[in-house]
Formats: sequence, structure tokens, C-alpha cells
Amino acid sequence: MTATTRAAAEERAAVLIEALPYIQRFRDRTIVLKFGGHAMVDPALAASFAEDVVLMRSVGLRPVVVHGGGPQISHLMERLGMVPEFVDGHRVTDAETVDIARMVLVGKVNREIVAAINLHGPLAVGVSGEDAGLILAEARHPDLGFVGDVHTVNPALLERLLAEDLIPVVSTIGADATGQAYNINADAVAGALAESLSAEKVIFLTDVEGLLADATDPASLISHIEAPALQGLVDGDTLTGGMIPKIAACLDAVAHGVGSAHLLDGRLPHVVLLELFSDAGVGTMITTGVTA
Amino acid sequence: MTATTRAAAEERAAVLIEALPYIQRFRDRTIVLKFGGHAMVDPALAASFAEDVVLMRSVGLRPVVVHGGGPQISHLMERLGMVPEFVDGHRVTDAETVDIARMVLVGKVNREIVAAINLHGPLAVGVSGEDAGLILAEARHPDLGFVGDVHTVNPALLERLLAEDLIPVVSTIGADATGQAYNINADAVAGALAESLSAEKVIFLTDVEGLLADATDPASLISHIEAPALQGLVDGDTLTGGMIPKIAACLDAVAHGVGSAHLLDGRLPHVVLLELFSDAGVGTMITTGVTA
Amino acid sequence: MTATTRAAAEERAAVLIEALPYIQRFRDRTIVLKFGGHAMVDPALAASFAEDVVLMRSVGLRPVVVHGGGPQISHLMERLGMVPEFVDGHRVTDAETVDIARMVLVGKVNREIVAAINLHGPLAVGVSGEDAGLILAEARHPDLGFVGDVHTVNPALLERLLAEDLIPVVSTIGADATGQAYNINADAVAGALAESLSAEKVIFLTDVEGLLADATDPASLISHIEAPALQGLVDGDTLTGGMIPKIAACLDAVAHGVGSAHLLDGRLPHVVLLELFSDAGVGTMITTGVTA
Amino acid sequence: MTATTRAAAEERAAVLIEALPYIQRFRDRTIVLKFGGHAMVDPALAASFAEDVVLMRSVGLRPVVVHGGGPQISHLMERLGMVPEFVDGHRVTDAETVDIARMVLVGKVNREIVAAINLHGPLAVGVSGEDAGLILAEARHPDLGFVGDVHTVNPALLERLLAEDLIPVVSTIGADATGQAYNINADAVAGALAESLSAEKVIFLTDVEGLLADATDPASLISHIEAPALQGLVDGDTLTGGMIPKIAACLDAVAHGVGSAHLLDGRLPHVVLLELFSDAGVGTMITTGVTA
Amino acid sequence: MTATTRAAAEERAAVLIEALPYIQRFRDRTIVLKFGGHAMVDPALAASFAEDVVLMRSVGLRPVVVHGGGPQISHLMERLGMVPEFVDGHRVTDAETVDIARMVLVGKVNREIVAAINLHGPLAVGVSGEDAGLILAEARHPDLGFVGDVHTVNPALLERLLAEDLIPVVSTIGADATGQAYNINADAVAGALAESLSAEKVIFLTDVEGLLADATDPASLISHIEAPALQGLVDGDTLTGGMIPKIAACLDAVAHGVGSAHLLDGRLPHVVLLELFSDAGVGTMITTGVTA
Amino acid sequence: MTATTRAAAEERAAVLIEALPYIQRFRDRTIVLKFGGHAMVDPALAASFAEDVVLMRSVGLRPVVVHGGGPQISHLMERLGMVPEFVDGHRVTDAETVDIARMVLVGKVNREIVAAINLHGPLAVGVSGEDAGLILAEARHPDLGFVGDVHTVNPALLERLLAEDLIPVVSTIGADATGQAYNINADAVAGALAESLSAEKVIFLTDVEGLLADATDPASLISHIEAPALQGLVDGDTLTGGMIPKIAACLDAVAHGVGSAHLLDGRLPHVVLLELFSDAGVGTMITTGVTA
Repeated sequence: MTATTRAAAEERAAVLIEALPYIQRFRDRTIVLKFGGHAMVDPALAASFAEDVVLMRSVGLRPVVVHGGGPQISHLMERLGMVPEFVDGHRVTDAETVDIARMVLVGKVNREIVAAINLHGPLAVGVSGEDAGLILAEARHPDLGFVGDVHTVNPALLERLLAEDLIPVVSTIGADATGQAYNINADAVAGALAESLSAEKVIFLTDVEGLLADATDPASLISHIEAPALQGLVDGDTLTGGMIPKIAACLDAVAHGVGSAHLLDGRLPHVVLLELFSDAGVGTMITTGVTA
Repeated sequence: MTATTRAAAEERAAVLIEALPYIQRFRDRTIVLKFGGHAMVDPALAASFAEDVVLMRSVGLRPVVVHGGGPQISHLMERLGMVPEFVDGHRVTDAETVDIARMVLVGKVNREIVAAINLHGPLAVGVSGEDAGLILAEARHPDLGFVGDVHTVNPALLERLLAEDLIPVVSTIGADATGQAYNINADAVAGALAESLSAEKVIFLTDVEGLLADATDPASLISHIEAPALQGLVDGDTLTGGMIPKIAACLDAVAHGVGSAHLLDGRLPHVVLLELFSDAGVGTMITTGVTA
Repeated sequence: MTATTRAAAEERAAVLIEALPYIQRFRDRTIVLKFGGHAMVDPALAASFAEDVVLMRSVGLRPVVVHGGGPQISHLMERLGMVPEFVDGHRVTDAETVDIARMVLVGKVNREIVAAINLHGPLAVGVSGEDAGLILAEARHPDLGFVGDVHTVNPALLERLLAEDLIPVVSTIGADATGQAYNINADAVAGALAESLSAEKVIFLTDVEGLLADATDPASLISHIEAPALQGLVDGDTLTGGMIPKIAACLDAVAHGVGSAHLLDGRLPHVVLLELFSDAGVGTMITTGVTA
Repeated sequence: MTATTRAAAEERAAVLIEALPYIQRFRDRTIVLKFGGHAMVDPALAASFAEDVVLMRSVGLRPVVVHGGGPQISHLMERLGMVPEFVDGHRVTDAETVDIARMVLVGKVNREIVAAINLHGPLAVGVSGEDAGLILAEARHPDLGFVGDVHTVNPALLERLLAEDLIPVVSTIGADATGQAYNINADAVAGALAESLSAEKVIFLTDVEGLLADATDPASLISHIEAPALQGLVDGDTLTGGMIPKIAACLDAVAHGVGSAHLLDGRLPHVVLLELFSDAGVGTMITTGVTA
Repeated sequence: MTATTRAAAEERAAVLIEALPYIQRFRDRTIVLKFGGHAMVDPALAASFAEDVVLMRSVGLRPVVVHGGGPQISHLMERLGMVPEFVDGHRVTDAETVDIARMVLVGKVNREIVAAINLHGPLAVGVSGEDAGLILAEARHPDLGFVGDVHTVNPALLERLLAEDLIPVVSTIGADATGQAYNINADAVAGALAESLSAEKVIFLTDVEGLLADATDPASLISHIEAPALQGLVDGDTLTGGMIPKIAACLDAVAHGVGSAHLLDGRLPHVVLLELFSDAGVGTMITTGVTA
Repeated sequence: MTATTRAAAEERAAVLIEALPYIQRFRDRTIVLKFGGHAMVDPALAASFAEDVVLMRSVGLRPVVVHGGGPQISHLMERLGMVPEFVDGHRVTDAETVDIARMVLVGKVNREIVAAINLHGPLAVGVSGEDAGLILAEARHPDLGFVGDVHTVNPALLERLLAEDLIPVVSTIGADATGQAYNINADAVAGALAESLSAEKVIFLTDVEGLLADATDPASLISHIEAPALQGLVDGDTLTGGMIPKIAACLDAVAHGVGSAHLLDGRLPHVVLLELFSDAGVGTMITTGVTA
């Protein structure tokens, strides 16, 4: 073995060994992953995400994937000649719209994630919030139609699938007691599932590097922030746009027993692996900040 | 208690007692139900079918529902300005068409069946043939595109769900080894699942009374026929149209260990219950005709 | 199918569907049935009771049958030239009498119930209170000899049999710490077993329609009464004769966690089925009347 | 400690240590014990038998007790003014007689054995061959009425009780497919149960020292005989009277997989313990004599 | 059977029957045995101890053996030219000494005990306190080097072995968090293991008859003493020498939930059997003296 | 994130992803590792080996470590003034020598491996071939004294420890039926354990790069060789010295169902990880060469 080969081999081994304490710490722990943004529409990134999920499970973690798909819903609506209408960022959702949303989320986006994972083995199972009573929904506001909030989660189905070493992929459709379907914000569902599963982590893939102290300066990334400080930023209107529901879900999750919440840059291949299994700090970690 | 009340009560009790030996015989047995035709589009019939399925499971049977949805696929294609094309009764299915078929089957038809069942409790779980490697598909014919046949069935996911007292509702999309989706004939899938689950019965809901000796005379219903005699009818070209794939699936199933196959009139409310739990003969039963 | 056949079929299905919510609600729940009176001596009624018990178990309930047999004991005593003697309604029971009571209850009455049930399959197992320490007895009064009260119940044996889907049929003989046998009132045993098994219901078959507001008017049947009101009737001496120990057992059972107690007319075939699985109100239901 | 005390202590320890290899060899093995004769009617012997059975179970063996009770049946018949009638040693058994036999066996003899064992803890459970389909009987001969032979044994109930560390005590009443009860010879039942349970040993308590080469000379006890030699004695008419059915049961049992059959002198206290746990040879052991 | 044989047989049976209540009482209970002193160096006594342990397990108890081996350690040190040094009865233990202690205890003394037990079957498994984190040690005193105290016990490994019906034989080496080995007093380890396993008894084999009221008079043996009275003797300096750590371990064990502690004379063959399974009082029993 | 950081992160992720298919393939498979040579005496290499073993187990493999320790045995013998004597490469082993070998292997070498692994958690359990009958030994040759061969393996203890996610570390002392200890060649034990555990792989750490086509040229490393070809080299006397027993063990293992045998260079840190989890070919792999 040449010196070069030997050095390469040692470096390779060092990466695996660096992962060891993380693998030990997270063994049998549940990790909820909100998949979305750029990573979901770029085939190479989607494939790398699928590999990360399979690796997580292969070393003994229990990943649960949650996804939305707003742009894909709008796209089909447009093809059908419908005009999406939004109020305060929420899509006004009549009966036909929720039907379309369900078709797109459960029948298209979910399927593509399942297919990408199952290239590595018969692992993923698509699930809708309507299956086995997983998500009981309630209407958010009369003006919004079938836009729902999570009323309660019954995680039994997910626990059964996880116990069988399967990977649930969850579409964020819920049903109310009459069986009426609702479309629910995927960030909120990810947080609620993480709570009900007592997850170790909930991870949100975004299209930014993480939480920035100065939104214009990528170098101002906040690696770790505790809930009270983050709440301060929220109250101070420092934060903007699409991050708001993610941050609300993060705060909610860590307040209800989830170990930590993470905002990661989904544009970086294998960002989930780096967060979980290496000493390299990526993205922003939110923890409760309250000592037990 | 008046004499009238008493007579009514006794009649009521008699129906329940008549069901007893059937309940005992079918306890813990798997029954595969191909849902379709008129029953799927008439809301009252769909609700009555859902009740039947829930009752089956409540008394200890293990129902598995399989469905297709050709008309619904055509409907969405038309709304999108596409023209369905058929060759020998098979829909020519390009990439966009299979995408639409999957959305409609998994994201719409399946969801409606799940919702109808779950009005009675958190029981049904929608499943696609792509989930956890359930159905490995292969192309039927190069000219047909992504029209598939069942190559192999891996029933592990269904067995897990059944072991948890859940009711799987299966959409007939399969995937090949590269993850490519295929649309598969639902009658064929029902037969193949029944075989792989060693089901007691496979039941096909149709829009006719059953198999008629004389297609023009409803009074000529054949209540019971053995496989060789039925094969004789097939070979003699006595049978026509939509019954052919159902009958092929029936013959295939009983030839591979399924106890019996049934053609029932889905237009009759609760026809499944009557077949399973009463002495009233309904529809046509096919058995192997070979003494073990 | 003719219109008449079709109507009959639909009616039949309606009865089964009416049973569905009850089957779902009582699944895996224990129901203690005190068998006795006319139903025990009329072969047709005894056979109908056996069918009811088998049906209960077949749809997932867990029935436990308890029986006495005073008239049969007296009959054998008379054939042996002994003169039954009663004090305050209790049979004075010397060593020979308890020996005879045990022979009759365990060796005859119990056997007949077991045989009737086992015509439907290997389901029933005869049990005496002496088996595996099921009922620890204590003497009721020195003057009565071996007439016992229930001191404590050790339900382990019954729980094991129920867990194996078997149907225990219990003779009401208990033993004290020295192994001495006692004859115990069967109503009291039924109530005590229901308590110790945390039963959903305890049902007493009687020879009347239920509890009547006016003992001379069958139309005055009380369908439902809460414990405090029933206690009022007891205290007011409104009730008479054989109902007293049954009602005491009812009040005791609902006060100790049994969901409801029922007085049913055992002269009506399949009265147990009607109570459990239909909307038809039969007999009298007693509940605690205390909101949890 | 004085020398005397010390010697006594060492002797005591020696007995326990002598038992060790037997305890190891028979751990978790099933031993069927046919209880009867003098030992059943002498209270001190009955109590010593109960202790033996409890000790067997306490050190990990799985005892099953089988009993008859001919004299007790005759006694009750006489008290009721009936005249027992025998043909070829079999009691002619009409409907009333089998009813009485059942009362006596299940309701009296069985109860006394259960009570004696349960003085040591909640261990024994009385079982009749009718319970849970344990013994399917068939008529022996039309002239004998309800005298039965064992048609088949369904040992599931016994296996369940043994798995729960309980001690089944079996009365030898069987039922045919119509539920009709039959009285069956207890020696034959003991052999049949031993076979169906794949017992290590079947032990018959008798009122003689064992099998004697010369029936008039107790010193001619045969300690061990193989099946072919014993069959020779049977064929040569060397054997007489009550031993015939026991020896037939022994030969049948060892021919069908039971390790060994034993004829022990039930008049000797704790004879079962001595056979099982000491080097002292007692009674006669029958083995197959065929090398596997 | 002669009268003499019969008398011998009855005596034999009496010993077994005398053991019955003890076997019942101690079934599935854990008994920790500190093996040492004369019994460990006399091959006949060591073999008799091994038989006792195997018999305990064979009748359903769960023995755990703990041993030290000071003389054997000194012996090897001397052969290697090292001079054992003691401070206050503790061996000053440098790195080389602990290495030798570990070799002798784990690699020699433990092996001999395991071998003696395994002559009776594949039962014993040698365990060191370092295995699977069984004993976390801490230094007793800087001057003593690697002489340890028990910091905490993680009994999971022992519980697993006991659940598999194996007999753990424990060497008293512990490790601290850095993996450094310590030699720990075996009496203290026996007491600590008994506590952590919620043992029924902890038994110390010694070279004296037990606790003597007057150390010069063997007839002054104290058969039973409660903890407060024993503490009084300790405080009064009545006790001397090697008994001190044993008595401290006894007091500690009964104060933390162990049922009783025993000092037995290991020079008496099978002394453990006599203590456990006979009415003969041997040695000294210490109980808490506090009524629960 | 700078471009450099990003490149480093991607490289890191690539190593983890490269490991994925290997982790999936080897999940729940048993890997037997013969530890020895340079790696055992160099503390840094020993620590890296311990990390590798812990990582294997953390990602779901089931490692079993086997070790010898010839030089350490010789060292203690010398300190005790004994002169090791060898015949044909086997140490002549009298009673004292086997005693010393056992002390060194079980009490010193084994302990050091256990300690190194347990720095990462309570994972390793030291086991000797004498424990629970693991290795039944037989004498190799009368002239060699207590040098043993493996007669049979009873892997029950190892299977239990593996089922509890523990890591067995096995010293190669066996015992014969009389309890006599024997010292056995560790290469042979590793092969025999791999066979009896149906291991996926058996891996031998050596002090060379692997099998060289030309022993003088490191570049002539044979990466993969099938059993018949390797047997050819053995028969042709091409191989020399210490490799002979290892190669015999390899051939024996693959001939009895072990998936593959490996000769790895133990001087390379983390060489086990590289073999198992990367595409980098290291050392020599031997497979059966027979198509199933």
C-alpha cells in the first residue's frame, strides 16, 4: 500500500470513526424531517436526501419524512384553468381545491419521495394524515375553506411502521370527524408529529443557510440559539417571510419535549448527514434553553 | 313485550345466529375484495361497502380492499385536454399518463375509500403497490408504455397491517426495479394479492348479478361453478367483455390456493355481508374442483 | 333476484349492520352472565343461551358463565331421602349436603352447560371456585353450616382461560384456607367475579321481564335506573323475594367498577344477543349514576 | 454442632443430592399419574400423594393426574336404589348411570383430589374430558350403553394449564360429537393422555407391589421389563384380573413414544417420589425395548 | 419390600417432603453466595458447594456466586518475587499488583469454580465486574492504590444470564470510568450485588460456625439476630477480625431490601442446602428487625 | 460556507454514503474477528481495533472477538522461571502451563480487550471456552499434554449475548468432559466459532499485508482467491510459517458455510472498517468458489 493510498484510507476511517458517538447517541431515536424547497425539485438533491434517510435508518435511527407541495398544487390548478387565491399566505381552499391538493400531495409528491427511497430497498411507505386516524384536523378560519390546523395526532400507525424498520413518508392532509379532508401546513405537521413521537430532533430543510443574525450577511449564521432568545427575535419582528411558520414549529416542538429543532440548508447535498453524524456545524440548532 | 315486538326480536336474533357458523369459519382468514364499478361511484353503495368491510374486521376477519379507477383517470385526462387512447382495451400510457393515473388512484379514489371506512374508526390505511416493495411490476407490451403486469408480490407490509387489525386499501400502481411506476389492471392485482396472502376468498364486485348461463337472462345465474367447467366456458368464447379479466383472475387465484373466488352484484347494498354471513346464495362462486 | 328476495336480503343485512357499533364497543370486553331460572331447565332456551355465548365470543367478546342450581340440589337430596331445610332463604348445609351440592353443581349442572356450548366447538371449560384458588370462601353464619360468602377472588385462572379464547363456566363452590368446601349464592358470585375481572357488564337471567315499577304490571318495566334510585327502591321495601340478592349484586358490581348490570328475561330466546347487539331495549339496565 | 447432629445433617444432604440428577433429567418433562386404588380412599395416603405431586411441580416437572372412581359410583347408585350391572367387567351404563358417574367423578372424586393439592397453594385445576374438547369418546359396545373408548385426544387445554405451572386433575368422562357423555376406563385415559402429551413417564398406582413373576411371591417383583417380554406374559395368560387394562395401557403408551410406564404400590407413602427422585428401585418399569 | 427397606424409603421421602415448602418459597428468588475460606481450597468441599449451587438452580432458585482469593494472589506474588504489603488489612495495590490480582481471580480462581459447576452441565458463566459495566469502582484511599470500593452496580448482565437459567460466577474486579481496574473486597461486592438484584438472601461461607455470643464457646452460636442488636455488638467492639467486613456487608444488605443475610460454616459439606431446604438451623441469620 | 468547507463537507458525506450498501448488506450478520499480532501489543492499534468493533455493533453488525496470547504466556512463564518448550510449533503444556496460559489469556489479555471496548459503553463481555459449555476440547496429541483441538462448539451463550447487543470477547481455553482445561490455537477457534454461528465473515488480523503471490514482493498481494486455488497453493508448499493455521482455518470456515474469510494487515489502523465499509480493497478475501 502506497503512502498516498494509506493516507486516503486513514482519512476515510477517520470520517467513519467521527460518526461513531453520534450513531451511538441517536440509536433508536426518532428524527422527523420536513422535506421541501429546492431540495424537493432538484432531482440530484432529492436523490441525495433519499440516501441520507436510508443511511439514517440503516445505522439504527428512525426517520420520519414530512412533505408539503404548494408549487406543485398551484401548477396542476393552473393546468386545470383554476386561479389559486391566497389570503395572508394561506391558499383559499374550496372542495375542488382540497381534492386537487390531496391528489398532488398524496398521489404525486409523496410517491416521488417513496420511489427515490425505495431504490435502496423496500423501505418507504407513503402515509396520509387520514390513514388510521393519524391527523385529526380542524378548520383554521371560515374564510379559508378546507385549510386545516392539527387538532390532535394519533401516532399509532407511525409507531407500528417504525417498529417494523420502515420509513413513513407523510403527506399533510388531515380529516375531521366527518371525514372531510383538509390541507395543513407541512411545517406545523412536522412539529406536531415530532412532539407526538417524542422525537429526538425535528429538522427543516430550507433554501437558506439557516437563521442569520443579519439577513443580508450569510456569514452571520447563528449556529445555536435557545428558545427564549429566538422568541425575542420573533417578537422583535427581526424575522421575515417563509421562516415564520418554520420557527413557530421549532419553538413549539422544543417546548413540548423534542430534543432540538434544526434549520438546514437543503441546497447542500447530504446536509442531513453532516448535521447528524459529523462535528461540522451546519445550519441553526434551536434548543429549549431550560435546564431540566 | 307485545307479540309483535317479540316476533321482531326473534327474527333479529335469528339473523345473528345464522351468521354464527360463518363467523367461526372465517375468523382470522384473509378476504381480498376488488371494489369497483357502480358501487364505487354511488355514494350510498360506497358507504354500505365500507360498513361491510368494517363489520368483517370487527368480527375477526381480515379484509383487504383493492381498487382501480379507469373512468376517473379518463375524466382528469379530459379536463387536462388529453385524449385517452386504448389498444385492445388497454390504455396506452405514456409518462404523463401514468403520473395522472397515479394521482387519481392513490390521491383521490383510494382516499375516498379510506375516508368512508374511517368514519367508523381509525381502521383503514391507504397503500400503493410501490410502498415497501409491495408490487414489483413489469411492462406488459412495448406499445402500451407504462401498463404493467404483476411480476412478484411482497406481502410483508400487508401482513404487518393485518396483524395490527388495520384494513389495507390498495391502489394498483406497481414499480419496476428502477423505480418506474406502472398502472396495473386491478382485477389481476386482486387475484395476485389473494394468492400471496393465502386468502380464503377473493371477491369481485361487478355490475351484473354474477355469471349468467345465458347473458340475456338474469334468471340463468350460475351459483357455483368449478374451475374446469368455467375454463370450458372461457375456451368456448361464451363469455364477453369486462368479465374476461375478472374470470382469468378468479381461475388463477383458485389454481394457486385461494379457497374460492366470487363474482357479486355490487349494485345490491351489503352484498358482501350477504355472501359471507348468510345462507342466502348471492352471485357466483368459483372453486377449484380438484379434490385435495 | 326478485323484489321480495331483495327486500329480505336487505333486512337481513340491516340487522347485521345494526350490530356493528355494539360489536366494536364490546370487543375484548368481559361480560359475566349469571345463568339460571327457567332458561336453565328448558332445553330449547338452554340451547339458545349456548348459541348466544358462542356468538359473543366469536365476535370478540369474552363471556364468563356463572350458574347455581338450587332446585337440582334439592332434587338429588330428596332422591337420597334427605329433607332440605332453609333458614331465611338459605339452605342449612351440613357436610353431606355440601358434598351433594358440589356433585350436582360441578358434576351435573355445569357439565350440561359445557356440553351445550361445546356442540359449537371446543370452547367451554368447566371451573369450580376451588380450582387454582379462584374463590376463597368464608362461612356466612354458624347456624347455616357450609353456606359461604365470597371472601376474595383470585381471577388468574379465568384470565388465563379468557386469554386463550376459552369460555369459563363457573360453579359456585368455594373453599376456605383449610380446603373445606362451601356452597355460595350464585348471584353474589357473578357480581364478585364481574368486579374482579373489571367486566364491562354483568347480566342476570331471571324469570321476569326485568324490574317493574309496579310488580303487577308488565308494562311498567324500568328500562334504565341509576344506582341511587335503585337503592331507594330497596330501602323503601318496594322490592320482593328472589330479586333482592340479584339487585344487591347489581348495586355492588356497579359500585366497584363494572360498567353496567342487567336484569333480563331468560324466558325470551336469545335475550342476551338482543341486549348486547341491537337497539331494541330489553330488560333493566343499572348504572352507577355517578359521573366519573 | 455435635457429631450426631452433624451425621444427621450429612445424611439429609445426601438424600437431596441423590435427587439432583433426576431433577435435572426430568425438568420440564410431563409425568402422567393414574391415581386410584387404596391410595385414593386412605386419607393419609391421599395427602401424601398430593404432597408428591406438588413437590414434582415445585422442582420443575409437569404432573398430570388422572383418576377414576368405580367404587364411589357404585356407592351412590346403591344409595339411590339402583343395581349396578357388569358385563365382562364393564359397568352397563344407561343414561341415568352415566349422569351419576359424571356427578361422582367430576363433582366428588375430582374435587377431593383438587382440594388435597390446593392445601399447598392455588395449583390444581379439575378438568373433565368434555372440557374444551379434551377427549372425544366413542361407544365401546352397543350392549354396554355409554361406556366409551378414547377416540382422539385434543391436549391443547392441558398444555395451556401446564404452561401456566398449574396441575390438571382429569376426570375420565368423554363426549362424542353430539355432546353425549361417556364413562371411560381411567387406565386407558392415562395412557392416551401420556401419548398425546409426549410424556416422559406414565405411572399407575396399584394395590400390589408391582408386576410379580410369581403372583404368590412378593419377592418375585420384576423391577424392569421390556415391552416384548411383557407382551409374552400377556399372551401366555400369566397375568390376571385388574392388571390387564393397566398393562395394556402401559404397552400402548411405550409403543407410542412415552419414555417409560410404571406400576407402583400405592399403599407405600410417597412411592411416587421414591420412584422419581431416588436410586431406590420401586415397582415395575416397562420400556419399549426397541433401540431407536 | 422388607421393613428395613421400607423405613429407609420413608425417611428418604421425609427429607424430600421437608424441603417442599422451602422450594416453593424460594422459587425464582435470587440467592447471592459469597464463596471463600476453607471451602474454596478443600477440593471435596468445593465439589460439594458446586453440587449445592446446581441443585438450587435445578429446583428453580437463581444462585449467583461471588468469590475473592487473597491467599492465591499472595501466592503468585511471592512466586514472582514480590512482597505483599498491607495497610489496615488492605493490600497496597500498585499497577502490577492489580494486574496479578486480576489474573489470579478472573483467570484461575473463577475458572476453578466454573469448572466444578460445569461438571453437572453447561451452567456456569464466569463474569468479572468489568464485563458490560457490571461494577463501577472508585479508589478507596490514595495510599492503597488500586484498592476499590463499589461505586455503583449495573446488574443488567447478571439479570440476563439468570433469565437464561445460567449461574453467574463473579470475580470482584471493578473498573472506573477510565477503564482502570480495581481489586474490591469480595464480601462488600456480595452485599452490593444482593442489593442491586433484590436478592432473597445473601450467604457468606466462613471458617467458623457462625456468630458466637462467646467467641471461645462454639455452643454459644447465635441462630438469629436482628440488625439493631447486631449493630450493638459491632459498636461494642465485641466482634473481631475477619468477621467485621462480612457483618458490615450483612447489615448493609438487609438495610437495603435483601430478605436475610447468613453466616454459614463452610467447613460443613452441603451447608448451603441444609440452610435453604431443611428445618435444621445452621449458622447465623441476620434480618432487618424492622417491621414493614 | 466557504468553497473549501463545502468541499470538505461533501467529501465527508461521500465516505458515509459509500458505507451505506455495506451497512445494509451486513446488518444483523455475525462477524468473527481473530485479534492478535502487532495490533494486540501496540496500544494505539488496540484502541483503534476497539473503536472498529464498537462501530460495527453500533450500525447493527454482530461482532465476536477471539484472541490468543502466546507471547504473553511465554513472558509470565519466564518470570516464573519456567522454560517454554515447543514441538512442531505447539507449546508442550503440562498442568502448570495450562494453568498459567488460562490466567494470562482469561485474566489478562481478555481483560485488556474488554476494557478497551468498554471505554465506549458497557458493551463487551469476556468469555472463556469453558463458560456454559462453549468449547468442548479434546487432546491434540499425548506428547503435547493439554494442547487441545475443538471437538464441538455449543454457541448458545454467544447467541444470547449477541441477542442482547453485547460483544463477546472469547479466550481460547476449552474443557473436556471431565472439566480439564486445554489451551487451543486461536485461529482454529475463530474458524470453528464462525462456522457454528453461521457467520457472514471471519477476519484474521495478521502482521502482513495479506496473502502475497510472491512472499518477497508486497505489490503481489492477492486481493481475492477462491478455496480450490488456495488449496492448490497450500498443497504446493508455496506458503510458509504462521500463515498455515490461519489459512487452514479460512478454508475450513468457507467450506462450512461462512460467507468469506479475510486476512488483513493488523498494522494498519482501522483496517477492519476499511474492509467492511468501503470500496477500498484491503488484504485478501477467500471465498468458497463453489456456486450454490
